[in-house]
Amino acid sequence: MTGQRVLSAEQHARMAWARIAEPDDKTARAMVADLGLPEALEMARNGVSGRRANADRFAARLRDLSTERDLEITERVGASVIFPDDPEWPTGVDDLDYPPWCLWVRGSGAPLATVTERSAAIVGARASTSYGEYVAAELACGLATRDFTVVSGAAFGIDAAAHRGSLATDGLTVAVLAGGVERPYPAAHASLIARIAEVGAVVSEVPPGSAPTRSRFLARNRLIAALSQGTVLVEAGLRSGARSTVSAAIELDRPVAAVPGPVTSMVSAGCHEEIRTGKAVLVTDAAEVAELFGRLGVDMAEPKQGELKLSDDLEPDAFRVWQSIPTRRSITVEALTSAAGLGVAEVMGALGQLEVAKMAKRTTRGWARCAP
Amino acid sequence: MTGQRVLSAEQHARMAWARIAEPDDKTARAMVADLGLPEALEMARNGVSGRRANADRFAARLRDLSTERDLEITERVGASVIFPDDPEWPTGVDDLDYPPWCLWVRGSGAPLATVTERSAAIVGARASTSYGEYVAAELACGLATRDFTVVSGAAFGIDAAAHRGSLATDGLTVAVLAGGVERPYPAAHASLIARIAEVGAVVSEVPPGSAPTRSRFLARNRLIAALSQGTVLVEAGLRSGARSTVSAAIELDRPVAAVPGPVTSMVSAGCHEEIRTGKAVLVTDAAEVAELFGRLGVDMAEPKQGELKLSDDLEPDAFRVWQSIPTRRSITVEALTSAAGLGVAEVMGALGQLEVAKMAKRTTRGWARCAP
Repeated sequence: MTGQRVLSAEQHARMAWARIAEPDDKTARAMVADLGLPEALEMARNGVSGRRANADRFAARLRDLSTERDLEITERVGASVIFPDDPEWPTGVDDLDYPPWCLWVRGSGAPLATVTERSAAIVGARASTSYGEYVAAELACGLATRDFTVVSGAAFGIDAAAHRGSLATDGLTVAVLAGGVERPYPAAHASLIARIAEVGAVVSEVPPGSAPTRSRFLARNRLIAALSQGTVLVEAGLRSGARSTVSAAIELDRPVAAVPGPVTSMVSAGCHEEIRTGKAVLVTDAAEVAELFGRLGVDMAEPKQGELKLSDDLEPDAFRVWQSIPTRRSITVEALTSAAGLGVAEVMGALGQLEVAKMAKRTTRGWARCAP
Repeated sequence: MTGQRVLSAEQHARMAWARIAEPDDKTARAMVADLGLPEALEMARNGVSGRRANADRFAARLRDLSTERDLEITERVGASVIFPDDPEWPTGVDDLDYPPWCLWVRGSGAPLATVTERSAAIVGARASTSYGEYVAAELACGLATRDFTVVSGAAFGIDAAAHRGSLATDGLTVAVLAGGVERPYPAAHASLIARIAEVGAVVSEVPPGSAPTRSRFLARNRLIAALSQGTVLVEAGLRSGARSTVSAAIELDRPVAAVPGPVTSMVSAGCHEEIRTGKAVLVTDAAEVAELFGRLGVDMAEPKQGELKLSDDLEPDAFRVWQSIPTRRSITVEALTSAAGLGVAEVMGALGQLEVAKMAKRTTRGWARCAP
């Protein structure tokens, strides 16, 4: 973005609200719902009779508020700010009870709406196992191959494995941060987050300079769910924060999948609980996730089947006779009637079928199995 | 059992049918359904006009048939044979499309009906992993502790681990064999099967001397399902025979559970598929199995929850304020209003709550967190 963007009064107010109110601030939402964006901001600033208490809530942050400065900083950190009704706006987030006031995006320049049009959130524990990280990376690879953008939170563990799996396949990936988009968190993932910004997008609903606080992590999790067609939980303990992303996806009526793991692993216990209680569908690979999140009839997973055996195609009597032929020697038809519990005519019929299928052959001493 | 048991004509015929017809022999079932047990046997023996073809099916085995000798052998191997309407008869097997003609039981002497009154089948792969065997044994222990009899097939892998887990907790366990009850299969499990007979029961629907053939394994699997209130699948490949036990349990309208494992383990793929397709409920421990198979309202599993944190009980504002207090230094109320995005009155109220909860304390420089 070059030069200063001209904002409408409503967009100004949205940036201001993003600065002074936490994403989950019910008071702010109620004020805006009552009065409209700029009017509620005006009330927060100056107070109106009988509602001073509400305004007091925002007093400290209003003192430092400067939308002009926030716009300058946004531009300086190489980000842009987008608003509802912008063509770049990912309309899926409007399904949230409290949609973001606006979104900061640091990315390749492709519109966020396009980048997240076909997308899957992969989330999970920070304290993951190598099993979980392997599966997250495999899923991300497989989903990238199927043209899904992988959305996650850039955290340690599952999130990072998912982003890296997508990057490894030249897929698109989006990191949603709990703090400002210019503030890589965790710091150890600065270069990962920079790479995500280069090819995909780094997104936040709080203005540059905002610290990632715990309530913002919860808010961020609901945004991950809202930016995706569905959410996959890879590893999560019973009280993992990643389960809040699952709850958000369920509230949004988006499909949720979970990857099982050993029942002896506490970091899979949250996944198992989501599956047990019917909140998540058990998935084992990217094809199954794509089928669940993708287009009906287009993203179909191949049905799972083991190795086919020749004997599967036999009639029951023929199969029984085949089972009754010893593996290493010949057997007479009479002995077969006893061994298989069938009449002579039935045994002869079955042997005919087996001969055609090249599974049995006549020998000088009766019948024997053919070598497989 | 001492002395020769006196059998009714119908019981005689049942023993004969068990000897000459395979458990899944539809021809035999149709003949018996048409004519009655002794009459159909008579037809198999002598033929009736126009139905000679059917009788031919049984000719070879009829030549060797001797119910008297089978009774002698039964007694000699320390077994007994039970029939429908006997008080020992486990009536659950009558739910099968083709119930056993009769059952051979080698056991502690306790009636099979009583032994299997509260029972769970634990089945799975022969080629199991140490993970699967561990989980099978743990489940069996936990179920035995909850007074469930563990029913399985004495095979290598999951079956053996389940029997051993039950035995280790002095639980009751039942092995259902595909061959005769006097014929331990696999031979390597002879002492395990002997131990099961001592404290529980070894059961078969085919007469002593019968070899375990493949079709009898499938028939045996349905019997495992029918002798249990529900079936747990622990490890199974996509084409594992243990999945036939699951199918049988579903046909019997009994609950089915499956234990997940790593998605990278092919020997868990069958379990995952049963869960994915809604045929089995995901379970992670014996409490969950007991809840599923047991008595409503009595065998309830404790709800799963992680470690409770003090902060869970806080109001949202108090929690947000607590989050905004730095971990290692004090902060002023004014700084807290900005950090938490709340008014002075709200921050003061929250600090009051935190003080009561011993989570925050006044310091000379404002407020600080209390040591946990």
